[in-house]
Amino acid sequence: MNKRELVIEVTRGGFVESRHQVIAVISDAKGKRHTQWGDADQLVFPRSTAKPLQALPLMLSGAAQDLKLSQQQLAMACSSHNGEVQHSHVVSSWLEQLGMSSEQLECGSHWPLYQPATVALSQSGVQACSVHNNCSGKHCGFLSFAHHQGIDPKGYIDHQHPVQQAVNDAMGRMMDLKITDHPMGIDGCSIPTYALPLTNLAMAFARFGTGEQLPDDWQKACHSLYQAMVTEPFYVAGSERHCTKVMQAYGGQVACKTGAEGVFGAAIPHLGLGIALKALDGNSRAAEVALNVLLDHLKVQPTEAVFEQHSKLHNCNKMHVSSIQLALVK
Amino acid sequence: MNKRELVIEVTRGGFVESRHQVIAVISDAKGKRHTQWGDADQLVFPRSTAKPLQALPLMLSGAAQDLKLSQQQLAMACSSHNGEVQHSHVVSSWLEQLGMSSEQLECGSHWPLYQPATVALSQSGVQACSVHNNCSGKHCGFLSFAHHQGIDPKGYIDHQHPVQQAVNDAMGRMMDLKITDHPMGIDGCSIPTYALPLTNLAMAFARFGTGEQLPDDWQKACHSLYQAMVTEPFYVAGSERHCTKVMQAYGGQVACKTGAEGVFGAAIPHLGLGIALKALDGNSRAAEVALNVLLDHLKVQPTEAVFEQHSKLHNCNKMHVSSIQLALVK
Repeated sequence: MNKRELVIEVTRGGFVESRHQVIAVISDAKGKRHTQWGDADQLVFPRSTAKPLQALPLMLSGAAQDLKLSQQQLAMACSSHNGEVQHSHVVSSWLEQLGMSSEQLECGSHWPLYQPATVALSQSGVQACSVHNNCSGKHCGFLSFAHHQGIDPKGYIDHQHPVQQAVNDAMGRMMDLKITDHPMGIDGCSIPTYALPLTNLAMAFARFGTGEQLPDDWQKACHSLYQAMVTEPFYVAGSERHCTKVMQAYGGQVACKTGAEGVFGAAIPHLGLGIALKALDGNSRAAEVALNVLLDHLKVQPTEAVFEQHSKLHNCNKMHVSSIQLALVK
Repeated sequence: MNKRELVIEVTRGGFVESRHQVIAVISDAKGKRHTQWGDADQLVFPRSTAKPLQALPLMLSGAAQDLKLSQQQLAMACSSHNGEVQHSHVVSSWLEQLGMSSEQLECGSHWPLYQPATVALSQSGVQACSVHNNCSGKHCGFLSFAHHQGIDPKGYIDHQHPVQQAVNDAMGRMMDLKITDHPMGIDGCSIPTYALPLTNLAMAFARFGTGEQLPDDWQKACHSLYQAMVTEPFYVAGSERHCTKVMQAYGGQVACKTGAEGVFGAAIPHLGLGIALKALDGNSRAAEVALNVLLDHLKVQPTEAVFEQHSKLHNCNKMHVSSIQLALVK
């Protein structure tokens, strides 16, 4: 167990109000740890952080190529999107392209993550459906894979369905693990999620960004998804979202992906490194600040200064009432 | 520093996903500690947990009586409400009663806390305004006090305004502290909030529930507010909210109030005790479970079994995917 600590604090009136403990690790594609904070061997549910890895069967099968999927579609296959009109438009068109309906998405329905999108949708008299689920892009990827492989998509969220088996095999190859040997839970969108060592997730992100330690076709698959994410960052998340802001600010140097319960993963290809981190209490605000801290630690320079602004929290009278920032890294 | 620990865990597939550390203290009206977990002397911003105390000038001044405020109005003076139609109706009527408009509320605007209320409001073509702010009931209390005292309400959110001075004096009397000697921050609704010892907050809740250690008129003021909260718990919070559920489940034995950043306060008059607690990472889900744990620790019996159900978390396909519960109390 490593003794380095990464602590993020929220202050109000300059006084500490809340504190978050974060575990984090930076790894290369061979699994060599560059730096770690806390126990990087801890088992963590990657949740949606795994999405770029879960999209690999879509690429490796040839489905993406045969369906001529756009960069926006590929970005959405890796996304936890806001349910804004641009997102629902891509998902709806994609389902149409597959000759499928929103009822074949098995992710469930929820109102858009982004409140202005919920308001706009309600104002236009539309009810939320599975298209607006933040995971609907990933699920379109699953349906595309099944469609291309001639597999009946029905029940594709089940851990024994061929779609999830292909997903687990791909994640396992990227992480040098047999995923299904690990504790299984069910994710928000109803597919399985496995508790996996944080350090293997960081290694997988290093491989994802660099293609190192991977066969040629895997290299190509990872490269295509990476390029889609950094070229179309709005389609990975959306307005006011950290993934989108980071990828915009670093101008292609970093691809990153958030996951529920305070997880974040990132690939920094020009350094040959990957990052994985988790706020132990599951709070995403701490994970976001921790990602900024780690990119700064690696001296990766953003092309836009978005982070000082990001650390200031405002109330509904637009007063700057509190801040969130690194309190301790040692 | 007390060595007892209170830890709340979130599990997924039976495996721990996230953990929350909570500090908590149970006190009587004299400030004698019954039990504590962690450092109960720690300074904590009570945030909205202070609302029942902040409503005292409304009672003590005679404003509530002269204005013949209903129990629903008094409950709302202590509320962080959902912005449901019942809530906005009480607030709008109250402003009308005062001959004032929503523009005199200085809390700022936000869409209702309760998503179905945001959807319903949007569908009916109405924009959110200060009436829907979760603090608008408290602010109506402030305006009523100013109106009754013949004070110009303009700028009533400022820490030097007579309204806030009266509020701070009342809180100070309940907590045996000079509030303004403590670190000041600005709350979500723009009034000042002070970082105060958690144990004094617990004592204030014991006094609030019992009237002990207070002059006659203060006893009466506390009793009226307590009765309003437990008689009209929907108006303290709303649908699916923990404050409302707890007060309904304990049938008048407990009045409780949540605050932002993981704070909770509760009064249990028949035991002569008050509770104050804070999830150190600021997460309200942990504070809610911790409140249940402490009420159970005190062997207070709910009239309805709501808590087992409350600990099960479901995804948008209504699958029971994770749980939140006590992991460690020692």
